[in-house]
Amino acid sequence: MLQQQSVSLDEARRIIDAAEAKAREIGSASNIAVVDAGGNLVAHVRMDGAWIGSIDIAINKAFTARMFDTATKDLAAMAQPGAPFYGIQQSNHGRIMVFAGGMPVLRGNQVVGAVGVSGGTGEQDQTVVEAALTGF
Amino acid sequence: MLQQQSVSLDEARRIIDAAEAKAREIGSASNIAVVDAGGNLVAHVRMDGAWIGSIDIAINKAFTARMFDTATKDLAAMAQPGAPFYGIQQSNHGRIMVFAGGMPVLRGNQVVGAVGVSGGTGEQDQTVVEAALTGF
Amino acid sequence: MLQQQSVSLDEARRIIDAAEAKAREIGSASNIAVVDAGGNLVAHVRMDGAWIGSIDIAINKAFTARMFDTATKDLAAMAQPGAPFYGIQQSNHGRIMVFAGGMPVLRGNQVVGAVGVSGGTGEQDQTVVEAALTGF
Amino acid sequence: MLQQQSVSLDEARRIIDAAEAKAREIGSASNIAVVDAGGNLVAHVRMDGAWIGSIDIAINKAFTARMFDTATKDLAAMAQPGAPFYGIQQSNHGRIMVFAGGMPVLRGNQVVGAVGVSGGTGEQDQTVVEAALTGF
Repeated sequence: MLQQQSVSLDEARRIIDAAEAKAREIGSASNIAVVDAGGNLVAHVRMDGAWIGSIDIAINKAFTARMFDTATKDLAAMAQPGAPFYGIQQSNHGRIMVFAGGMPVLRGNQVVGAVGVSGGTGEQDQTVVEAALTGF
Repeated sequence: MLQQQSVSLDEARRIIDAAEAKAREIGSASNIAVVDAGGNLVAHVRMDGAWIGSIDIAINKAFTARMFDTATKDLAAMAQPGAPFYGIQQSNHGRIMVFAGGMPVLRGNQVVGAVGVSGGTGEQDQTVVEAALTGF
Repeated sequence: MLQQQSVSLDEARRIIDAAEAKAREIGSASNIAVVDAGGNLVAHVRMDGAWIGSIDIAINKAFTARMFDTATKDLAAMAQPGAPFYGIQQSNHGRIMVFAGGMPVLRGNQVVGAVGVSGGTGEQDQTVVEAALTGF
Repeated sequence: MLQQQSVSLDEARRIIDAAEAKAREIGSASNIAVVDAGGNLVAHVRMDGAWIGSIDIAINKAFTARMFDTATKDLAAMAQPGAPFYGIQQSNHGRIMVFAGGMPVLRGNQVVGAVGVSGGTGEQDQTVVEAALTGF
């Protein structure tokens, strides 16, 4: 039997609150999503004025970060033409997002969920997702 | 020019809080989703222990309620074999949910968004979604 | 933090072995799939001669049984025209299977995964999936 | 009349066992999948701790290796921007994987199936898939 810890809704909300505070601070209206250890959505918010097209991206950045237990920005380099994982974007029914803004949530060294942020530049999304983790 | 009012994130959260309180009261762990006037997701929560398969259903019940400005339970009757909208389930990329738990959110007689609840029996989901509207 | 137990690969193999033995006994070449607590595939086998079209069905029966923590045969009744969950088949991107052959795997009263069997009649699939659980 | 030989479930299991032994030796928790001569899944395992996002990739690497009777790592070069098969990734409903880890299974010079491995670096996946073939 495998033992798996996974983020609760309360924890997901604290993660989202931390992300939202930072997003407001830097003026980047964002979608913020949290998935559990199985990659399934726990909570999502779209801040007023955030892109509608970023709903799906935020959810899928969180999904991606859990699928490969990695920051989506690190996957970006590996998914470029000529790089070892070029083409990984096609997998998992097109849900793999290979740009900044998704991070796994760790307790010790077990991945217990992931966060995805979308709505700003790659740099802004990355700033917000890193702030999100401080809420955990 | 059209003027469209739409639920804000703050309002979506109040709607979700009201739903969650009722869900807890009746012991029905639920997914709760709110969409805006465009049918696009504003916020979603999955209560601890709620069915994973209900994430998609809650979001799509809210979507459905806004797509046709109607309670999904009323759509159920019209979508049965032999009824006038039989087959509507295939439309909109399979996102139309024809059972109880989705309701439009109205201000005056303008639909400004919708809520979807999934996780219990049809009756429980309907009880929770009606409570959700009192949060608005 | 939520604590979730989930089937290991060793356990999935024992579940599959028990299913395969029963399938052979009743002469019903089957696809057998096991998913974990997150609904994600752990292991799958297709017995020689089993339907190719049943690969997807076995995997999705297991997925369905975990999505709603229920036997897929019980979902069948609820998904009929006029019944409370008519239309649930459209949800979750068409992955919901509403006929016999999928069962959740429980330890105590926690669902730790699910099994799906496809290849025979509904009755045969149900016989095989029930045998599968004895392997756990 | 065409005569087609195809891997049996027993053979698929021996292939998987050989892959799993190598994966354990090099410490690369892997998803391993075997498809038959028709490109359809015969068996899949996800080793404990292997990436969830690699389930789909392992199955599709095996699929790809059979679709074009080629090692997926050789396809990688041909699928780069400017190369002759650039865009092949979009074909076959997004199931074509153009990086290392998929190999056809041959008897004599007839392709009788294929194996796909995903979970490590491209180099690790390639090492494991080559070991897989020794099980045949």
